[in-house]
Amino acid sequence: MRSFRLTVAYDGTEFHGWQVQPGLRTVQGVLEEALDRIGIERRSRVAGAGRTDAGVHAAGQVASFTAGTRLPARAVLALVRRELPADVRVREVAEVEADFHARHRATARRYAYRLLWREHGLWERFAWCPPRVPDGERIERAVREIEGAHDFAAFQASGGGPGGTTCRVFRAGWTGWEAGLRFDVIADHFLYHMVRNIVGTALASAMQADPARHMRDVLNSLSRGAGGVTAPAQGLTLEQVFYGAEARA
Amino acid sequence: MRSFRLTVAYDGTEFHGWQVQPGLRTVQGVLEEALDRIGIERRSRVAGAGRTDAGVHAAGQVASFTAGTRLPARAVLALVRRELPADVRVREVAEVEADFHARHRATARRYAYRLLWREHGLWERFAWCPPRVPDGERIERAVREIEGAHDFAAFQASGGGPGGTTCRVFRAGWTGWEAGLRFDVIADHFLYHMVRNIVGTALASAMQADPARHMRDVLNSLSRGAGGVTAPAQGLTLEQVFYGAEARA
Repeated sequence: MRSFRLTVAYDGTEFHGWQVQPGLRTVQGVLEEALDRIGIERRSRVAGAGRTDAGVHAAGQVASFTAGTRLPARAVLALVRRELPADVRVREVAEVEADFHARHRATARRYAYRLLWREHGLWERFAWCPPRVPDGERIERAVREIEGAHDFAAFQASGGGPGGTTCRVFRAGWTGWEAGLRFDVIADHFLYHMVRNIVGTALASAMQADPARHMRDVLNSLSRGAGGVTAPAQGLTLEQVFYGAEARA
Repeated sequence: MRSFRLTVAYDGTEFHGWQVQPGLRTVQGVLEEALDRIGIERRSRVAGAGRTDAGVHAAGQVASFTAGTRLPARAVLALVRRELPADVRVREVAEVEADFHARHRATARRYAYRLLWREHGLWERFAWCPPRVPDGERIERAVREIEGAHDFAAFQASGGGPGGTTCRVFRAGWTGWEAGLRFDVIADHFLYHMVRNIVGTALASAMQADPARHMRDVLNSLSRGAGGVTAPAQGLTLEQVFYGAEARA
């Protein structure tokens, strides 16, 4: 039996998220069906490093599975690409050590959230136009507060699982993007809706007298009720998954 | 008879350009079919301000047509949207004066060309990864040379129509975009392949000892043979069309 690692990009607009759900179109489901059609005797689920929600995109999702095939990785790549719809693209297939697991082995993920100040025409699938335009310097000050190891309970959607709400954020910051801003955040792991709640809260914080203090108060409250809106899914993209120590470099 | 102006966005990947061609899927063709299906008694072609090539995108293409309908513009918008495929979207419909013509009345167009230094996963449909990464400051110096009124014969594809090769470039410059650069250029009109030839030549100029001088020499040669490669279509987007004096503001 052999193990494979896939690097996958998708436009999440027409998917009900990553994870298989009966009767719904999901990225995991579409990938598993494509792999099964090429006859590689799949022996495991296709495990994704980030279980992206409905409408969330990926540029560099990483997934893994085991299979009984004797095909080389480059043949798996060529064959599976022909079975996939236009909105999901396998970028790379590599054979990896037998016990590799895309989620358990990941040491960090990078997500980006894109904001637009006005309608563009093409980017609405990949960005959100918030009702008010924040000051760039003030929204930057707000998100700097989340860097480091913290209990992120205040940024987890109600309905998120119990326990394990401490995450280590290696980097969080904004840069210019089209007529708007892009938020990049790297952390060891993320809670349910965490990035979207950070973005909504950072927008609220930027409107306060002291953005850093407001963000810190929400973080310390450990209560989802203290923060801003959950920014919509379409602005969010899983950009990159890290293995080993590279995310801290 | 009434005249309407449409503002249209499209992902050009699956289109053979704007202009109707028998047996091929074009944006003009898809729009005309959609308008005809809603029964508005169209009396003219749908004229586009920019006749984008195969694979070229638009965020703010402007088109116009005349029709016998009594429907208000907002009803035309709602009805036509339901008839269009996912890769073309009418952003706005307005009723305009009877003799409005999207192409003849346009005073300027803005195009953007997006470059990526490495594969991203999502943006390859909308950007080009050139073989060599230019220095940002040097490629900026190159394109500054084309601002103003010049004979752009050196940047017109062979096969472009005769005469009228003088264009007025109001602004040309690069800004950061994702892990790459975006070129924005505003001019009164553009020759066939002009933006793509400017981008290919600017990349070549940035590798020369004196980028501005190389760009100026190509421009003054009036010969397509002097310049760089034609950058591929997928990086190009028609961003905006101007009417009246606004482009110069």
